[in-house]
Amino acid sequence: MSNQDILERLGAVLEERKGADPGTSYVASLCDKGLDAILKKIGEEATETLLAAKDGKPDRVVYETADLWFHCMVMLAYLGLGPGDIMTELDNRFGISGLDEKASRAE
Amino acid sequence: MSNQDILERLGAVLEERKGADPGTSYVASLCDKGLDAILKKIGEEATETLLAAKDGKPDRVVYETADLWFHCMVMLAYLGLGPGDIMTELDNRFGISGLDEKASRAE
Amino acid sequence: MSNQDILERLGAVLEERKGADPGTSYVASLCDKGLDAILKKIGEEATETLLAAKDGKPDRVVYETADLWFHCMVMLAYLGLGPGDIMTELDNRFGISGLDEKASRAE
Amino acid sequence: MSNQDILERLGAVLEERKGADPGTSYVASLCDKGLDAILKKIGEEATETLLAAKDGKPDRVVYETADLWFHCMVMLAYLGLGPGDIMTELDNRFGISGLDEKASRAE
Repeated sequence: MSNQDILERLGAVLEERKGADPGTSYVASLCDKGLDAILKKIGEEATETLLAAKDGKPDRVVYETADLWFHCMVMLAYLGLGPGDIMTELDNRFGISGLDEKASRAE
Repeated sequence: MSNQDILERLGAVLEERKGADPGTSYVASLCDKGLDAILKKIGEEATETLLAAKDGKPDRVVYETADLWFHCMVMLAYLGLGPGDIMTELDNRFGISGLDEKASRAE
Repeated sequence: MSNQDILERLGAVLEERKGADPGTSYVASLCDKGLDAILKKIGEEATETLLAAKDGKPDRVVYETADLWFHCMVMLAYLGLGPGDIMTELDNRFGISGLDEKASRAE
Repeated sequence: MSNQDILERLGAVLEERKGADPGTSYVASLCDKGLDAILKKIGEEATETLLAAKDGKPDRVVYETADLWFHCMVMLAYLGLGPGDIMTELDNRFGISGLDEKASRAE
């Protein structure tokens, strides 16, 4: 799936699972517990990301950051949002297109 | 520009800026302060994400989650990693390709 | 002045200041900004406590933990609670009196 | 134990238990897992304190803040520190004695 959109597909999977029978998946079970349960996971994974970074272990940093982003995506799905909203915000705010243009002009 | 492209481009921008003169950009200045300064921002943005979610304000949730992911990406760049590592991990771990394949077979 | 006294006195000072003119003290100013501003500080100080502990620097651990507890006490004052409520909870939950009694009996 | 020092006694109990057989108590088991396990609990309890405060439920705020302070005290014991160090810091930094004196003079 080299050039495809992993975030978008993961977002679609979460969208599908969030309302499923709690017994069928981790995501369905977490969403069934409610917003606080999801937010606790975000707090936990943020903490684990910091600890991994302080230990300077790249593999664990990647693992924990992926966990953090994953649980953020569960929260987004729970709230009727998705990773596309975050990408649009990043694009608007940090002006990736603009930066890119500037970089092109500089060449 | 797909979601994936935005992450990749933002990753490339961060890569370029992380070692630049601290006076030239927020990212260069933050990286110059060192890992702890970056991690404090991650802690702060995680907290603000939780508060926004508890308030049930979609715009603020998107804003704060984007901030959280952005600072995670600064950390990744600082540690010689990038958003591609997170996407690969999510793909491997949550089996997006596998799920996708299964979904195709089910059609 | 015993530890307990310090908490009690600090609690009384916070109680007094929480409703004061925001220009007169840090606590009055923070409380004037509202609950989210106080909770952000708790998130920040918790993060700084973790970073200090990972660095293994006792002085900084003490400094940051004191900051964390201080901002928890500001939150308690803001919500009409105080350090005495935390002490009562710790006493009840972890059975300090009970443990103490058991320790006495074991002698 | 109305006028006695709950923090100091709890500190002494933790000091005693931190090196005990991991099978004998929660504290001994947590300390046996190491610093990261303790810090993860601090991250978790800080998150739960924020969520309780946002929900405006005094009982839960007290419960979670007590949990947060308790796990901070486990960390302190693990690092050879104790609640007395935090009280001394609070006393020095926020000048409780000084404030008290000022309050007396104002009468």
